[in-house]
Amino acid sequence: MILNPNLAATRPSPVVEAKRWIAGKDFSPDAPLINVSQAAPIDPPPIALREAIADIAMNLPSAHVYGPVLGLPDLRDEVASHFGTAYGGVLTSENVAITQGCNQAFCAALATLAAPGDEVILPTPWYFNHQMWLDMAGVKTVPLPTGDELLPTVADAEARLTERTRAIVLVTPNNPGGVEYPADLVMGFYRLAKKAGITLILDETYRDFDSRTGRPHDLLAQPDWGDTVIQLYSFSKAYRLTGHRVGALIAAPERLLSVEKFLDTVAICPNQIGQHAALWGMRNLGDWLAGERDEILARRLAVEEGFAKLDGWRVLGAGAYFAYVEHPFDDPAEALCRRMVDEIGVLALPGSMFNPEGQGERHLRIAFANIDRDQIAVLFARLATLT
Amino acid sequence: MILNPNLAATRPSPVVEAKRWIAGKDFSPDAPLINVSQAAPIDPPPIALREAIADIAMNLPSAHVYGPVLGLPDLRDEVASHFGTAYGGVLTSENVAITQGCNQAFCAALATLAAPGDEVILPTPWYFNHQMWLDMAGVKTVPLPTGDELLPTVADAEARLTERTRAIVLVTPNNPGGVEYPADLVMGFYRLAKKAGITLILDETYRDFDSRTGRPHDLLAQPDWGDTVIQLYSFSKAYRLTGHRVGALIAAPERLLSVEKFLDTVAICPNQIGQHAALWGMRNLGDWLAGERDEILARRLAVEEGFAKLDGWRVLGAGAYFAYVEHPFDDPAEALCRRMVDEIGVLALPGSMFNPEGQGERHLRIAFANIDRDQIAVLFARLATLT
Repeated sequence: MILNPNLAATRPSPVVEAKRWIAGKDFSPDAPLINVSQAAPIDPPPIALREAIADIAMNLPSAHVYGPVLGLPDLRDEVASHFGTAYGGVLTSENVAITQGCNQAFCAALATLAAPGDEVILPTPWYFNHQMWLDMAGVKTVPLPTGDELLPTVADAEARLTERTRAIVLVTPNNPGGVEYPADLVMGFYRLAKKAGITLILDETYRDFDSRTGRPHDLLAQPDWGDTVIQLYSFSKAYRLTGHRVGALIAAPERLLSVEKFLDTVAICPNQIGQHAALWGMRNLGDWLAGERDEILARRLAVEEGFAKLDGWRVLGAGAYFAYVEHPFDDPAEALCRRMVDEIGVLALPGSMFNPEGQGERHLRIAFANIDRDQIAVLFARLATLT
Repeated sequence: MILNPNLAATRPSPVVEAKRWIAGKDFSPDAPLINVSQAAPIDPPPIALREAIADIAMNLPSAHVYGPVLGLPDLRDEVASHFGTAYGGVLTSENVAITQGCNQAFCAALATLAAPGDEVILPTPWYFNHQMWLDMAGVKTVPLPTGDELLPTVADAEARLTERTRAIVLVTPNNPGGVEYPADLVMGFYRLAKKAGITLILDETYRDFDSRTGRPHDLLAQPDWGDTVIQLYSFSKAYRLTGHRVGALIAAPERLLSVEKFLDTVAICPNQIGQHAALWGMRNLGDWLAGERDEILARRLAVEEGFAKLDGWRVLGAGAYFAYVEHPFDDPAEALCRRMVDEIGVLALPGSMFNPEGQGERHLRIAFANIDRDQIAVLFARLATLT
């Protein structure tokens, strides 16, 4: 069977792999599996949003047929207005593309930037789907180590620039690291990218759960940001719409002409009902989302406190939906994760899935947003029994 | 601004281009635009399906959150069972992936097959998004001319095989040509692909509107079809779900492991509500779809009759949603299409958009499924005035 060697060399999806570890296993009703592997709200959207979706399905005929490739004009407007205000910039709908989820926004951004053989710099630990896309596109991933604080430095990135470098990708708040990148660090990367004539991609899927107030950075307030920046967003986490697949890409109108070619071919258009749901959420769920953020920040605190009391474990980063932690065992990370499934009924992802081969063996990612504070207490009770 | 040269060299989307031709133009209420540019049902799904979608949105929490990368198990089962019966083969859900539309199924199939520099054979006129994907992936498109009947020959394809050839793509019923490929021709291509150790991709987006009864081909009845065949399908046309973006890919389970990597990265999962809608349609709308097919076949007949009476025009192929016709004017095809917008309020796509540069100038594609028989009569009355 002929296989594209680039795809054959791409590692399998960690989320799919991890599902295979639990397939066919029985967990006692008294001690059900605690799944902290995927960054996914488990509850559906609030009832008012579900009612809005049902109403759209019944009464808005256009929600069932093709829409514009770059997305619903009203949703593009809403994103432009919201992000313009939040980041102190002037955006119009011409700066916004809607995508079938934020992963696709990343693929579209990269497709406009890098040809096979080009290079893209990713801080480690990285978000695995970013690295998988680069592999399957034949683009070389250049890992940028971050050390104990999980923050990359501009100098380390600069040292890795070559004539084939096309972009640096920052995820903030970070997946898997949880760390929120300081505004001046993001600005430093912007200046480096601008000077080098390359693109800075900012994936802000988790921006709604940033613990800081005010702007997370000032990039979109720069007059010529569009020459350098592509910013990505997801509606999945904010409004519990993971199953609807709606994301966004913010860039210069000129770049969106290329994004449009990619999206027309891969998507034709984003699904319409999901877009209407995202628009309804942006217009009506601001207060509700603020409550969600408070809850996620409370879970984060509970997770930090839990690890602080647990012998030998150490939190390297916590934020967004994640804690990225160092474990005290001799097992390599994947072996430990599989042992945790069998011994304590906990499914987490090993650091090795977020790193170049051979790295991340001391680390795990805990997607704590999936579990409430009672379950967080159970998680730590179980972790305390692990030997 | 850095652009991936492969994407920069990709032609813009014809559907997007054509929308720009009519942007800002006023058409009189007495003579509204007749849009035969896109293969898109204009009406929403039948009310019973809209009610089912609303019910799912309200009452099925899982329809709002992530599902499996390869799609809902029940929908994969239904497709396997339905296609197994229709094509006389034995399929299981392990042969089926659900995608965010059939365009994405094509991209996924190609991503598993061809690396940059490899070659794929496409009969001309081709479906433009297929060719755009090959261009942006750095894969070389090898055009396979079809002549007056719009049917490629196996011998012509064989003459174009090289050591870099990875696949031959057949679209049947054809977009844009309308022609239904005879079963023995499809079998001939299967034998060639098998002998050459390459893949035959069959895009059957329009299979539900095939005018023939019985199996359109016997490929899935071959014991080892999975070594050679990838078959693609769309739920968009059958159930008027174009805005939901749901398609399917049928292949060997081994190939689906690679498809899964691609879809995980580009999609994470297909949107859930659209999948449930497609499943409901397959289970409940068989009779309704048979009526839709009758209507489309009646429109096709009306279009064939209309052109037969029209001086100087000639139908090269009619079927699926399309008539592919030769026009009698001196204008190149795109100039003619733009003139038709201004002079007679008709938007069709030029043959040049479905062909290598410099070809297709005598041809237009008429997507007749969009308009009812009254509008078809108006279309021909307007075409008769064109000079």
